[in-house]
Amino acid sequence: MNSGEHDLGLPVDVPSTALFTDHYELTMLQGTLKSGAAHRRSVFEVFTRRLPEGRRYGVVAGTGRVLDAVENFRFDADVLSFLRERGVVDEPTLQWLASYRFSGDVWGYPEGEVYFPGSPILRVEGSFAECVLLETVILSILNHDSAIAAAASRMASAAGGRPLIEMGARRTHELAAVAASRAAYVGGFTTTSDLAAGFRYGIPTVGTSAHAFTLVHDSERDAFRAQVDSLGRGTTLLVDTYDVGEAVRMAVEIAGPDLGAVRIDSGDLLLVAHRVRQQLDELGATDTRIVVTSDLDEYAIASLAAAPVDAYGVGTQLVTGSGHPTCSMVYKLVARARSADPKAPLEPVAKKSLGAKSSLGGRKWAARRPDAQGAAEAEVVGTGPVPADLVDHQLHVELIKGGEVLAREPLDTVRDRHAAARASLPLSATQLSRGEAVIPTEFV
Amino acid sequence: MNSGEHDLGLPVDVPSTALFTDHYELTMLQGTLKSGAAHRRSVFEVFTRRLPEGRRYGVVAGTGRVLDAVENFRFDADVLSFLRERGVVDEPTLQWLASYRFSGDVWGYPEGEVYFPGSPILRVEGSFAECVLLETVILSILNHDSAIAAAASRMASAAGGRPLIEMGARRTHELAAVAASRAAYVGGFTTTSDLAAGFRYGIPTVGTSAHAFTLVHDSERDAFRAQVDSLGRGTTLLVDTYDVGEAVRMAVEIAGPDLGAVRIDSGDLLLVAHRVRQQLDELGATDTRIVVTSDLDEYAIASLAAAPVDAYGVGTQLVTGSGHPTCSMVYKLVARARSADPKAPLEPVAKKSLGAKSSLGGRKWAARRPDAQGAAEAEVVGTGPVPADLVDHQLHVELIKGGEVLAREPLDTVRDRHAAARASLPLSATQLSRGEAVIPTEFV
Repeated sequence: MNSGEHDLGLPVDVPSTALFTDHYELTMLQGTLKSGAAHRRSVFEVFTRRLPEGRRYGVVAGTGRVLDAVENFRFDADVLSFLRERGVVDEPTLQWLASYRFSGDVWGYPEGEVYFPGSPILRVEGSFAECVLLETVILSILNHDSAIAAAASRMASAAGGRPLIEMGARRTHELAAVAASRAAYVGGFTTTSDLAAGFRYGIPTVGTSAHAFTLVHDSERDAFRAQVDSLGRGTTLLVDTYDVGEAVRMAVEIAGPDLGAVRIDSGDLLLVAHRVRQQLDELGATDTRIVVTSDLDEYAIASLAAAPVDAYGVGTQLVTGSGHPTCSMVYKLVARARSADPKAPLEPVAKKSLGAKSSLGGRKWAARRPDAQGAAEAEVVGTGPVPADLVDHQLHVELIKGGEVLAREPLDTVRDRHAAARASLPLSATQLSRGEAVIPTEFV
Repeated sequence: MNSGEHDLGLPVDVPSTALFTDHYELTMLQGTLKSGAAHRRSVFEVFTRRLPEGRRYGVVAGTGRVLDAVENFRFDADVLSFLRERGVVDEPTLQWLASYRFSGDVWGYPEGEVYFPGSPILRVEGSFAECVLLETVILSILNHDSAIAAAASRMASAAGGRPLIEMGARRTHELAAVAASRAAYVGGFTTTSDLAAGFRYGIPTVGTSAHAFTLVHDSERDAFRAQVDSLGRGTTLLVDTYDVGEAVRMAVEIAGPDLGAVRIDSGDLLLVAHRVRQQLDELGATDTRIVVTSDLDEYAIASLAAAPVDAYGVGTQLVTGSGHPTCSMVYKLVARARSADPKAPLEPVAKKSLGAKSSLGGRKWAARRPDAQGAAEAEVVGTGPVPADLVDHQLHVELIKGGEVLAREPLDTVRDRHAAARASLPLSATQLSRGEAVIPTEFV
């Protein structure tokens, strides 16, 4: 799969990704251009203070899309006239924006890695001005995609190797759906219903028919005949429009024992799957698979582990992050120089107010310490030199250097990385029950 | 506000909206082209079986985006080669798709209206083939946008006339964010932080500074001076980076009593807002407003009703639908002719399986019956002739006729319609507590 294969242009309805930006990023730019602080070397970090309640690990997803967004972040004439007409910023700021290209460095967890509270998922370095502008679009992408990937990863664990079909496009924004398919694939899904995701990211697409197909014909029999005539015996027939037992009998009568699969979209799936399996076997259709698709989430999938189910289709709960449709990633200034001199040393900075919103200053490294058996034991995050025993266990890779994207990679690489990262966690990581982060984060 | 003002092209990263479509819509097309059912006149309806748990009304949003999507739904050469290469459908189907233009009719609730379980929110009529293809993109848009608008509407009720700032872009997909800003505006929000939403839909954008602005300067004093120098005394200063009391004192010292506003983004907002108001008043800054922005939802907004707060900024909970990030709208075939003869009568059809997924066949009208005082009393949905007393209370408007979009309208019209629709409901509609739909749906 080549992730750039069908990239026909900018993934936006505005001429670049530059407007996926909060108004205040531009006013901060204006203010610092005037005060001079715009040119101070700065380090921003993306991290979360906590995982969604009950979750044991997070999944980094969207990094590849972040790289595209940073590369396409530029202010063309249309955008500049909009900003001028609306009086968003002043003329010197508009002039600065006209030649904007990110020229700094980005380090981060490679896409597909797992993360924990405090993990410095992404580190963006450059002048304050060039870095501050990227906050909104970076967080949009990572917060959305990581939320979907985390849900997908739990579902993939629950499915225990059975294929998972992503079919949630109709339950989320039409372009969020494309990113959701991508994130689901990273998390372990196998295929998608979303043609745009197939087109954009090369994810295999699947689908055969809905109840409307049965209803538009004069009878279920006519519909099944039409589908088998058109799509062949290997197709998947939807058997719950009227009576499941009758439909299964007719499906095998029409398609023969080579019928590819039947799909069940309603009812008590555990019970119905057992009955349908028995019926298919009695009819000699022992290789005909059973696909279930009714409001599934990771718990429903797990509850069907002992059922004769061959594939799961998941919609709503996947694209809404199974109760957690966003992550709480933030993008914080953690260090900056005290002058615009490029050689001025970085000084750690942090908000100091009361309560949960404080954060840790300083440019951070991260490593995952293994135990004697090689399983992850702790997420170690620090600001000083990396301890010798952790040097080989560091998590950051260089993603952008001097504005040049270094680390584009095929989606299958990302998907494999996630499977390996999940497998390296303690076994309790994949328990579906609510719990704490499966490994602690240690700050050194 | 002119909703088409900055429409520079297709709102997609694929050449049209046609790929925002589930694979099975195209295989159903292929199957019915072969069986002939593709050409049967058909009626599809969008409705929900229930409101999200505890919600008392739904809000129709996204209709304007649906009209754009239908208009831009076409299969160009790139899309057709993708479908051919992947073997999604056969050559006759590809040929049919090449000239696809929706030529049917669409009726629906006007955007901004409220809806209830069973309300026929949208009705799409044409050949089976031309209608079935639109399912996924129509549902994506309506399910997403209506979920956000419903949350926005509850927040607007809770805010009781105080302005609401949408600032959730960083918590959702970057293009979902633009649609979310639009839906929030429909639901009663005043402004947005999202520049793309300003660009695309003309929604007023706002913003001044984040904690990073304070931290990049050598001191909070330097930062406040820089901001006031650059943005003027009318700006909003963020006062919770270090010590709120000290920051407020310094803010008024630097900007004078004409300081526009202070923003509080952490802590116990009720307590802090009272203290800050008292301090501002004592400093003579009696017109300086207080903006609060910390993880608000409709309940937190309501709890601040008695606090001296002048505006609310809402992020995460708005763009994730305040616990309900999607609606459960479905797109169902409810009637179709028994032949391809354009004069053949429509016959009602419906899935008949057990459980909650059954639906009501037949092409439906809808009306909202008022009580003697003019408040809404019932949602009446029927398939026969419209009773005389309901003729003037019908809800459907014609949106597309013979493929031509009829009903584009400015976003302010939609926003005003929503405010009026909400105001016409019984008072208990805007209670935040969990409850049933505020009026019953009667099927006649």
